[in-house]
Amino acid sequence: MKRNHEYYMNIAMKLALKAKGQTSPNPMVGALVVKRGRIVGRGYHKKCGLAHAEVEALEEAGTLSKGASLYVTLEPCIHFGRTPPCVDRIIKSGINEVIVGMLDPNLLNNGKGIHILRQHKIKVHVGILEESLRKLNEVFIKYILKKMPFVTVKVAESLDGKIATSRGDSKWITSDKSRFYAHRLRQNYDAVMVGVNTILRDNPRLDAWFSAKQPVKIIVDSQLSTPRDANVFAAKNQVIVVTLSSRPGQETENRKMLAEKARILEVKEKEGQVNLKDMMKKLARLEITSVLVEGGGTLIGSLFDERLVDKVMFYISPKIIGGKEAISSVMGKGIGRIEKAIKLRDVRWKKSGEDFLIEGYVK
Amino acid sequence: MKRNHEYYMNIAMKLALKAKGQTSPNPMVGALVVKRGRIVGRGYHKKCGLAHAEVEALEEAGTLSKGASLYVTLEPCIHFGRTPPCVDRIIKSGINEVIVGMLDPNLLNNGKGIHILRQHKIKVHVGILEESLRKLNEVFIKYILKKMPFVTVKVAESLDGKIATSRGDSKWITSDKSRFYAHRLRQNYDAVMVGVNTILRDNPRLDAWFSAKQPVKIIVDSQLSTPRDANVFAAKNQVIVVTLSSRPGQETENRKMLAEKARILEVKEKEGQVNLKDMMKKLARLEITSVLVEGGGTLIGSLFDERLVDKVMFYISPKIIGGKEAISSVMGKGIGRIEKAIKLRDVRWKKSGEDFLIEGYVK
Repeated sequence: MKRNHEYYMNIAMKLALKAKGQTSPNPMVGALVVKRGRIVGRGYHKKCGLAHAEVEALEEAGTLSKGASLYVTLEPCIHFGRTPPCVDRIIKSGINEVIVGMLDPNLLNNGKGIHILRQHKIKVHVGILEESLRKLNEVFIKYILKKMPFVTVKVAESLDGKIATSRGDSKWITSDKSRFYAHRLRQNYDAVMVGVNTILRDNPRLDAWFSAKQPVKIIVDSQLSTPRDANVFAAKNQVIVVTLSSRPGQETENRKMLAEKARILEVKEKEGQVNLKDMMKKLARLEITSVLVEGGGTLIGSLFDERLVDKVMFYISPKIIGGKEAISSVMGKGIGRIEKAIKLRDVRWKKSGEDFLIEGYVK
Repeated sequence: MKRNHEYYMNIAMKLALKAKGQTSPNPMVGALVVKRGRIVGRGYHKKCGLAHAEVEALEEAGTLSKGASLYVTLEPCIHFGRTPPCVDRIIKSGINEVIVGMLDPNLLNNGKGIHILRQHKIKVHVGILEESLRKLNEVFIKYILKKMPFVTVKVAESLDGKIATSRGDSKWITSDKSRFYAHRLRQNYDAVMVGVNTILRDNPRLDAWFSAKQPVKIIVDSQLSTPRDANVFAAKNQVIVVTLSSRPGQETENRKMLAEKARILEVKEKEGQVNLKDMMKKLARLEITSVLVEGGGTLIGSLFDERLVDKVMFYISPKIIGGKEAISSVMGKGIGRIEKAIKLRDVRWKKSGEDFLIEGYVK
């Protein structure tokens, strides 16, 4: 049976996925060496600093690479980064044909790798399962092109859009199953972010349960009112407290105490609050490529106001909280006219225990 | 092929459903006369004041009723109401066996009809497709037992639970398809209800499109601030404006003008507002057995606060409105602790155009 490019690319993609959440700030990449229809080499990029997928696959194939086809989900690199360029390694291997899932969005490459391969008389096909691969590497694409992290907002709300009652009670709106899944989600992100009000009200640890990799914890706290004994400091992972620059002579006792437990990231001001756009740029410079925002309504509202959100995940519990003074999932300024509402694309929905999960991308 | 009771009862139920929204304050009822496995008579209750289902079916069957079986979705009546009692008619017909879907919840009957049939040596089976039939007649059951209308709250909100922006714009949050379906829904209710703020903000007509039967329109308006030229008065159907009693000498000009266009229903006060429980009792006395509440957030919130809601239908559009000052779908006082949240049972969900419909019953 003759298998087509999609068949092999799909296997390469599944290899890439094995390192989900582990490769930051690099993309997930998978590769296969195929000779006369038989897979003779497999590889995926396991972690930043370790070998690229193509190199792993070529290593496994050894001399069988000669005259074989190489499937790779992302265009091979041409630059010396943490490892030598893959293009050179491919040329040396004697590979006859390279099938590339998608071009490298990084403008340093973006077609140049393919050009060099072709100069060396290697046949190249580009654009196999491209849509799926773009989704696979949505974080990397955003980070590389915009120099900003990919931002997902996760909300657990009642049917009437509340995340806490008028008294501030929020435990628990959604079911065990949804909360378990939400915890699992954290390990796929470089960082988990909350506003200081969430720290003050819920005092969460922000851990990723049952995960070796723990995300960085980010608290947005313009006035530096995070308590030094907050639960978020209990575990060992790095905490970043984002705040405004202190003016000389205004360093408070709390700032000094917090600086012992967390990294204080000073950003520009906007209307007396943290400038969220500046914050995201600075987080990207720290190689934080993805952020999962878990609340509260003020931070999430402001992120939408600034159009900084890429993806949303709303867990909706079939219950009513009500209350003019209850806390809404998205506050901030909001939009003025309905036609300016933030629309979603690629909307998906599913049951999650008793709850409903509606997720989609910001248009 | 021998058919069972469920088979015939299901046909009787489908007959009953033909008069959906037309029988108020009576229940929907369907009936079949079956002789040696053949359906020889069919009937359903078409409208209050017209023949009951059993009578229709027996009429069609004529002398074939003798020795036949009668299937009827609801226990036959024993009292002279707008029509003579069905039990007498059944006994006279020579029917041999009666299969009853569910007992009449009306305590004036509730088993008495069956007792009389048995006294006349007619075999009676009770409780076929009972769960479905209770759902079919949920409005009638609530109305008869509680002397209150069955109240459905319909909401069209954004993913973040907003029904209007901070500027009050609400046109349109949900898709054409959802709005069309919501209009169609109106014809199944005796009345459509809104708070006066919805009249002031959206100025709706509250019609049921493409429907012969139009619901009564109810405006909850403590301070009588409905404008006399509101669109709700444009069509011919009856409008009821629910308000507080006027104190002698306080009859305003607007009250007099509104009284020419609408029925003014005075109800008790609660904290300066319309007492919603008293309102519902008085609407039931006017034979309004079902109310579809369409907004706004204040009225809906207060209805939940008073535990007056039976069913909810939330149309959720995949867009974000945001805003601390935006209008939430359920306001009022709300609950204080999450464990006191109003939970839903028999929750169902489906796509509605681009939107999601989540519906359920208040536990």
